[in-house]
Amino acid sequence: MGYVVGDYLLDRLRELGVTEIFGVPGDFNLQFLDHVIAHPDIRWIGSANELNAGYAADGYARLRGIGAVVTTYGVGELSAVNAIAGSYAEHVPVVHIVGVPAKDIQANHRVIHHTLGDGDFHHFRRIAAEVTCAQADLGAADACQEIDRVLNSVRVQRRPGYLMLATDTARVEVSRPAMPLAPPADFSSVGARAAFAQAAREFLSGRRVAVLADIFVDRVGATDRLRTLVGPASGHSQGLPHATLAWGKTVVDESAPNFLGVYTGAASPPQIRAAVEDAERLVTVGVQYTDSITAGFSHRIDPRRTIDIGPERTVIGGVDAFAPLSLTAALEILTGIAPEFTAPATIPAPTTTPPVELPAAETPLTQAALWPLVAEALGNNNIVVADQGSAFFGLATLRMPTGITFLGQPLWGSIGYALPAALGAGIACPDRRAVLVIGDGAAQLSIQELGTWIRERMNGVIILVDNDGYAIERAIHGPAAPYNDIAPWRWSELPHAFGGDAESVLTLRATTVGGLRHCLKAATDEQDRLVFLHVVTGATDYPPLVTDIASALTRANTRT
Amino acid sequence: MGYVVGDYLLDRLRELGVTEIFGVPGDFNLQFLDHVIAHPDIRWIGSANELNAGYAADGYARLRGIGAVVTTYGVGELSAVNAIAGSYAEHVPVVHIVGVPAKDIQANHRVIHHTLGDGDFHHFRRIAAEVTCAQADLGAADACQEIDRVLNSVRVQRRPGYLMLATDTARVEVSRPAMPLAPPADFSSVGARAAFAQAAREFLSGRRVAVLADIFVDRVGATDRLRTLVGPASGHSQGLPHATLAWGKTVVDESAPNFLGVYTGAASPPQIRAAVEDAERLVTVGVQYTDSITAGFSHRIDPRRTIDIGPERTVIGGVDAFAPLSLTAALEILTGIAPEFTAPATIPAPTTTPPVELPAAETPLTQAALWPLVAEALGNNNIVVADQGSAFFGLATLRMPTGITFLGQPLWGSIGYALPAALGAGIACPDRRAVLVIGDGAAQLSIQELGTWIRERMNGVIILVDNDGYAIERAIHGPAAPYNDIAPWRWSELPHAFGGDAESVLTLRATTVGGLRHCLKAATDEQDRLVFLHVVTGATDYPPLVTDIASALTRANTRT
Repeated sequence: MGYVVGDYLLDRLRELGVTEIFGVPGDFNLQFLDHVIAHPDIRWIGSANELNAGYAADGYARLRGIGAVVTTYGVGELSAVNAIAGSYAEHVPVVHIVGVPAKDIQANHRVIHHTLGDGDFHHFRRIAAEVTCAQADLGAADACQEIDRVLNSVRVQRRPGYLMLATDTARVEVSRPAMPLAPPADFSSVGARAAFAQAAREFLSGRRVAVLADIFVDRVGATDRLRTLVGPASGHSQGLPHATLAWGKTVVDESAPNFLGVYTGAASPPQIRAAVEDAERLVTVGVQYTDSITAGFSHRIDPRRTIDIGPERTVIGGVDAFAPLSLTAALEILTGIAPEFTAPATIPAPTTTPPVELPAAETPLTQAALWPLVAEALGNNNIVVADQGSAFFGLATLRMPTGITFLGQPLWGSIGYALPAALGAGIACPDRRAVLVIGDGAAQLSIQELGTWIRERMNGVIILVDNDGYAIERAIHGPAAPYNDIAPWRWSELPHAFGGDAESVLTLRATTVGGLRHCLKAATDEQDRLVFLHVVTGATDYPPLVTDIASALTRANTRT
Repeated sequence: MGYVVGDYLLDRLRELGVTEIFGVPGDFNLQFLDHVIAHPDIRWIGSANELNAGYAADGYARLRGIGAVVTTYGVGELSAVNAIAGSYAEHVPVVHIVGVPAKDIQANHRVIHHTLGDGDFHHFRRIAAEVTCAQADLGAADACQEIDRVLNSVRVQRRPGYLMLATDTARVEVSRPAMPLAPPADFSSVGARAAFAQAAREFLSGRRVAVLADIFVDRVGATDRLRTLVGPASGHSQGLPHATLAWGKTVVDESAPNFLGVYTGAASPPQIRAAVEDAERLVTVGVQYTDSITAGFSHRIDPRRTIDIGPERTVIGGVDAFAPLSLTAALEILTGIAPEFTAPATIPAPTTTPPVELPAAETPLTQAALWPLVAEALGNNNIVVADQGSAFFGLATLRMPTGITFLGQPLWGSIGYALPAALGAGIACPDRRAVLVIGDGAAQLSIQELGTWIRERMNGVIILVDNDGYAIERAIHGPAAPYNDIAPWRWSELPHAFGGDAESVLTLRATTVGGLRHCLKAATDEQDRLVFLHVVTGATDYPPLVTDIASALTRANTRT
């Protein structure tokens, strides 16, 4: 076959870093999937459903810098829309490719399957426009330009894009891309740089400076730049004291001695809170304060003592704005003047992983013992994906070893996300090991993707916390209410039922502290198989941060 | 607690027929769920995820006349949007209640969890507006009026409605409903009735009349009226010859001798095709022609010989329209003049269930043997829910016993729908037995609802056809393509893993004709348990109608 629009799209995706595409077949995308299968550098990964495919593409994109998901018109794309909205909220660049009916069918307003029966073929594009940064209904005349436009937006805005690929458009013959897409240029103006450099010097020189970083550092690709600023290259041998919010967890090396810990507003340990809130000067980098990572907006940051570096502008002292100024450029400038800061005071010893007095081996497992043991068992190459419940809040404040990537979804907070996302993250990085931590309530939403995990023969560790229901909801409201119960499953049987065998999966179960230690050791020893670890804790036993966050959310929901 | 907006909404739903509500808890709906739990006549049924909850509410509404689903803001509602769109496309009245953040949080544009982080709280309402017939963001001032407005629209238009129930609005104290909602009145004008009666008499008197019925007969509640018209009450002892389209299957009694069969355009058996297409006069009732039920618009209906009765208007001879005229009124009028029709010719013997030459008991099972055996095993009280693949097309043309309700989703066609929908239908009718027929590819999308089915201790029969992938996609394109493969599961192990035991589930497996006969007999004998029947057929063995439909869809997708 000739070189067609579908090939062009795939080559562009490959150019941006995509080597795997997730999705579900449907009759409007089957011919395009032939080209996916035929592409020499792209592999098709069939998902069990579209929501899970979207989640997997999101997890993949968080590691790879871009991801792609293919669905069919209407039924398929709408099943994925929650995942796409999550990518939008959390600034993850995912390309959503929807196989749609041929242009003449659309033009004739035919009442065909997967439509609402009213002849309007743009209902779902309007839906997509609410949760994507760019959309196109690709036509024969300008499909390649439109693909480039949407992919550029996805890359620059780091948010999902939406492509309607009609069955006939997909097979229009076109030329190969003439040249690669131009990489996004730094948009900072010379004037903004110079003015910021001068103002920052005046604001920070001779002051003690602390840094609070968050998710946008990762999203704009400035992690290394941030690590340079807070490390010894700052001209201060012990580096600058710094913390992150939970959304940006592991954007810095948490094992560094000058890492203060994860700041959670009023729920923070006193030393972290003081180091952040009482800093003589605080530089916040890529921070967005949301309710769930600040224990209900309980953060107390004085803008008069703060430089706030955002993705596109920086504000000093709460009043002076410098723009257009990229986050990376602002960090570069600060690194240049960092030697003029007053040397930091001795940084307090780490308090984020307090030494836990572990009970005896035969003691039934509690959340207080569970999370430190899990954190302790993590290896340097792990990608930890925590579902947005007890798993996320249980691990968020615990110090992780060098080299760990920690993923959660604290703004969008869609339970069930983590299972497919961990699969996607693991596929994005075959030389690293994905560790999924998820509760039973959340896992019920997306459990079928366990079958895909097994079929893909991906190693990894799944820690399934079986505590009889939606623990985070119990903590917020209705600890004994029947709506927080779930159907009781036999979790340990699922890996085999979903196709696992002794070659592909090791299934373990822990109900005591000693049992968990033993299982975590076995998981570390078993690098070649998936380890499915079924952990049992009490229904109303919550990590401390869950209790704090839950109280804040309860207040917000019941305030009159 | 006092009587609040949440109670008012529940009382209105109860008044319209809701006694069970499906959904998933989330922190913005928990307080409302307290009222659901406390309601004396409404039961909460927690679903494993929101898409499945929406499907279950749809299946429930198809039997009950109304259904309701509760989700939380953003993450929850978007997960359900494919189900809601399906209800819209297929004219099913489902009320989608979304627990949303308090009004002051919205007014202050707070960056809170489950939002896109941009302070705009109406993104998802705009999404809902594409797939629901009425929407309201309930506020303290007029919550009750707005509830009534949306519920009235849902009832009259028989399409889903969307209610945003803010945490603070839900607990505003209000008065109980003063009186029941007024039932929808017949909107037919006296003039349209009279004019239609006269024109219909002229058009039909002294002619041989056949009837072709479809889904809208059910949707407007005119099933009994239609059955009267085609039965002996028409003044003709053997009744009028009639057929349905597959979407409207079982809107008539298929065991009646004057039932011709299911008309599928050019894919119909010749006798049915002739009886419909060559009728001297044809009355079509509540028909919408879509691609998948007409084998790609291959129906040939001559409008000059047809009276087309729609939900709100009727057209005679393709030119003369009578409106406003309800479908029910038009049927009443026709019944009155039916004695003037020429007596029907002898109705051909049924051909829709041709006598199948069943192979020997030990022969491996094929699709050709499977569907007639399933149809033969159905009992009079069954609700048969067929997923939109081989299951639907395999059963669509087979004659069903009196009293069966057959449900499919041929317009929207979302695979995976049938499993939760069958659960919902069964819960709507506890005195009937739900029979789910679904392929393995489809079942993977929504399998977790099997756990809810088991937890609810609902009896029923699940026939899971394990044929190694998406058979309907294979028939359309790529019979051996890897994208039509699925992860291989051990289906027979799933009922136990999802919580079943010997008291609640009987799990059976059939690979031969004799085995299937034996299993179907056992399923009939086991009225008190769920029977999960794992049936194995070949990967590229399709029912004949699937081949015909697939050819038509392939042509539509590849025409240049």
